[in-house]
Amino acid sequence: MTRHIQLTEQGKLKHFLTIEGLDKALLTEILDTAESFAGMSEHQVKKVPLLRGKTIVNLFFENSTRTRTTFELAATRLSADVLSMNIATSATSKGESLLDTIHNLEAMHVDMFVVRHALSGAAHFIAQHTAPHISVINAGDGQHAHPTQAMLDMFTIRQHKKQFEGLKVAIVGDILHSRVARSQILALNTLGVAEVRVIAPKTLLPAQVKTMGVIPIHDMDEGLDDADVVIMLRLQKERMNSAFLPSESEFFRCFGLTEAKLKRAKADAIVMHPGPINRGVEIASSVADGPQSVILQQVSNGVSVRMAIMSMAMHSQGVTA
Amino acid sequence: MTRHIQLTEQGKLKHFLTIEGLDKALLTEILDTAESFAGMSEHQVKKVPLLRGKTIVNLFFENSTRTRTTFELAATRLSADVLSMNIATSATSKGESLLDTIHNLEAMHVDMFVVRHALSGAAHFIAQHTAPHISVINAGDGQHAHPTQAMLDMFTIRQHKKQFEGLKVAIVGDILHSRVARSQILALNTLGVAEVRVIAPKTLLPAQVKTMGVIPIHDMDEGLDDADVVIMLRLQKERMNSAFLPSESEFFRCFGLTEAKLKRAKADAIVMHPGPINRGVEIASSVADGPQSVILQQVSNGVSVRMAIMSMAMHSQGVTA
Amino acid sequence: MTRHIQLTEQGKLKHFLTIEGLDKALLTEILDTAESFAGMSEHQVKKVPLLRGKTIVNLFFENSTRTRTTFELAATRLSADVLSMNIATSATSKGESLLDTIHNLEAMHVDMFVVRHALSGAAHFIAQHTAPHISVINAGDGQHAHPTQAMLDMFTIRQHKKQFEGLKVAIVGDILHSRVARSQILALNTLGVAEVRVIAPKTLLPAQVKTMGVIPIHDMDEGLDDADVVIMLRLQKERMNSAFLPSESEFFRCFGLTEAKLKRAKADAIVMHPGPINRGVEIASSVADGPQSVILQQVSNGVSVRMAIMSMAMHSQGVTA
Repeated sequence: MTRHIQLTEQGKLKHFLTIEGLDKALLTEILDTAESFAGMSEHQVKKVPLLRGKTIVNLFFENSTRTRTTFELAATRLSADVLSMNIATSATSKGESLLDTIHNLEAMHVDMFVVRHALSGAAHFIAQHTAPHISVINAGDGQHAHPTQAMLDMFTIRQHKKQFEGLKVAIVGDILHSRVARSQILALNTLGVAEVRVIAPKTLLPAQVKTMGVIPIHDMDEGLDDADVVIMLRLQKERMNSAFLPSESEFFRCFGLTEAKLKRAKADAIVMHPGPINRGVEIASSVADGPQSVILQQVSNGVSVRMAIMSMAMHSQGVTA
Repeated sequence: MTRHIQLTEQGKLKHFLTIEGLDKALLTEILDTAESFAGMSEHQVKKVPLLRGKTIVNLFFENSTRTRTTFELAATRLSADVLSMNIATSATSKGESLLDTIHNLEAMHVDMFVVRHALSGAAHFIAQHTAPHISVINAGDGQHAHPTQAMLDMFTIRQHKKQFEGLKVAIVGDILHSRVARSQILALNTLGVAEVRVIAPKTLLPAQVKTMGVIPIHDMDEGLDDADVVIMLRLQKERMNSAFLPSESEFFRCFGLTEAKLKRAKADAIVMHPGPINRGVEIASSVADGPQSVILQQVSNGVSVRMAIMSMAMHSQGVTA
Repeated sequence: MTRHIQLTEQGKLKHFLTIEGLDKALLTEILDTAESFAGMSEHQVKKVPLLRGKTIVNLFFENSTRTRTTFELAATRLSADVLSMNIATSATSKGESLLDTIHNLEAMHVDMFVVRHALSGAAHFIAQHTAPHISVINAGDGQHAHPTQAMLDMFTIRQHKKQFEGLKVAIVGDILHSRVARSQILALNTLGVAEVRVIAPKTLLPAQVKTMGVIPIHDMDEGLDDADVVIMLRLQKERMNSAFLPSESEFFRCFGLTEAKLKRAKADAIVMHPGPINRGVEIASSVADGPQSVILQQVSNGVSVRMAIMSMAMHSQGVTA
């Protein structure tokens, strides 16, 4: 069902809403396509005319400078025209419904919606109700999914580890509320890593966490032991001092990544974080800026991976370059 | 006088401030030019280089996402560069006068102002005071005029009815405060429809309404009888519960468009609305989304019509493609 | 030291942070390059492909519509892609540090930062910490410098006076708090004018003002006597009614530029102002709009001068057109 809506009849990517239902071949195609764009960023002219004359609408119902910026850059480097709408403060203030906004933009002959929304399922809902020629990319929906973030993480892992087989990956932090973690777990398992561990206090793990294909661990030392990849999650400030969490310093003591704790992982383990980082909360500055950190490479890869997903979704619709 | 300022000495469109003073030939030229752009939206590459290297400034003193967006898309598809300024929150906060803002932008060698302002006459005022090579397009000024909206409505009517001769057009709602209605009435009469009816309670009709070349009617059934075109106006929430109006539900009962009332019009009558619609206030959802509604086609046509007006205004200034 | 950071090893402009440390030859190269762009603004197509495929980020921590707009236009007319970030309301609200924001944007392979910041030294700080291939342009930092404004002023002076040698230039107003004045004084002295006078009440002059190579004068008539160029500074409203200043009208009486006072200057003296002007506070409307005023030419020249600085900074990095 989810597969159905994301793919064309020929099995090509049309919408990108969630990792769920996508197979290894398709995820690998995304990574391979992104690789062809990655070199381009170093060129004098960082543009290709793949989406010239296409109109891409950034529909950000939730504010996110970093994600919106990389999508905007990705679209611009594909030569598309970008319309960035801060929906929170515009059409809806005239009382128009989400669907009316969507249908009006459709009528203006736009080609793609990049959707960020605080409600889980928002991008999916738009994909179900929009015109057939329009592609929808999920740029984060509630606590459900953030699939482009997961794919740029996969790209970064492959860049350093060459293959997914045999890897032990530890994801540390607030798994319960993290759309990033949910998408990462699906992608890692689809791509065939050996082991996905989730490291968190019990209050920050979903009840049925084992059904997600992960090993829950409550002790950081144990969780990092022999890991190839360590993914730290951002701790949302709004969770702090709530029922879920003790103090910031207590969290850092137990689940913050320090140089000492990182020694438990493999010597060539890489450290990842979706950003923006809270220095001294979930990660020590010395680790974030240290030799094993690939956090800024994740940001670079975010542009290439989004270019890949955007161009694949447009091309499945019959766009010819 | 108004004609004078809008046209070049050769009678070509230079500014587009109001329908007043423009003749049938010129309005028809706009519709014909728009038609040549309408097909383009379905193309793979929705761009023509007509205004490449031109700088168009969106001067929106009043917020309007939809209108600003279609103007921005129209400019982009003509390959112009667009500068969108939210004036309310910028230069004027440093206490600069409107004319100083205009003269400063002129000095930056911009080519066109698209002006939206809460005061009637604002676009006209700017056209009178700006440099001779600059075109001004009125994107809505107070309760005076919204001429690009009227022209996209005319385009939509012609698309469905082929010619204006013989048509009976009913405009329903708050005529008194509507710049859209004012421009529509002028355009319909210039293009030669048989009859323009305005349907509203007495409190929402201008005192001298008959001098506008319309038939005022206070009963909806009577007003819709045998109509070819039904144009619903948006009811401004801020008028509600004022001296002008009873309750929302009372308004809907008397002047809201329902399937039952629509039966009084011709069987092939089209239903129009400038948007955004208030479902259940001035129009029932079943009608807005029904087979006779052309509301979303109006939105599509808005891009083509604005491309036409922008390119005509620039070309009268000696731009060669 | 300052020279070091602004120039490449070959002595080419890499960053543009301050006039300090730049020699006459380099300032003249900027003016000559700007001249080649100045004619372009009158062309049908106001674009050159010099920076095609480059990404320029406007990092405005302080709001400034006019300066941001001219930088955006300059970048667009060089065919660069522009990302305008209103930092105050975005990334930093998630608690990210300035350096983390910079490093993240670097990772997205941007090419230039245009920085406006309320703190003196902000652009310099970013230039010191950013990746080697990135150029930084100071668009105003605290009370320190506004070097692109100074260069457009130099361009305007040369346009009217042909050469700097022998000129007497009077700068009038709040010298103490003005980054514009600081940069102007450095540029005027480097370019070799005969005399720079600063005219202000004692409370609005820096303590060691004579070390800046200027003649401090407290009487307006004396200061304007025989001047070739009169530069009025904007009076910041926030200084008014403070310890520094008497009332607005008292300031205008003593230091406001009127037609009568202007008669003390040379008959062909030009009147300049960085804008936006406070009519009737530091300058009479009749002077601002009068025949000796070149205020709007300054605005025009601002686009050409910024194009020159941006393209020179990019080309020193090895960009080939």
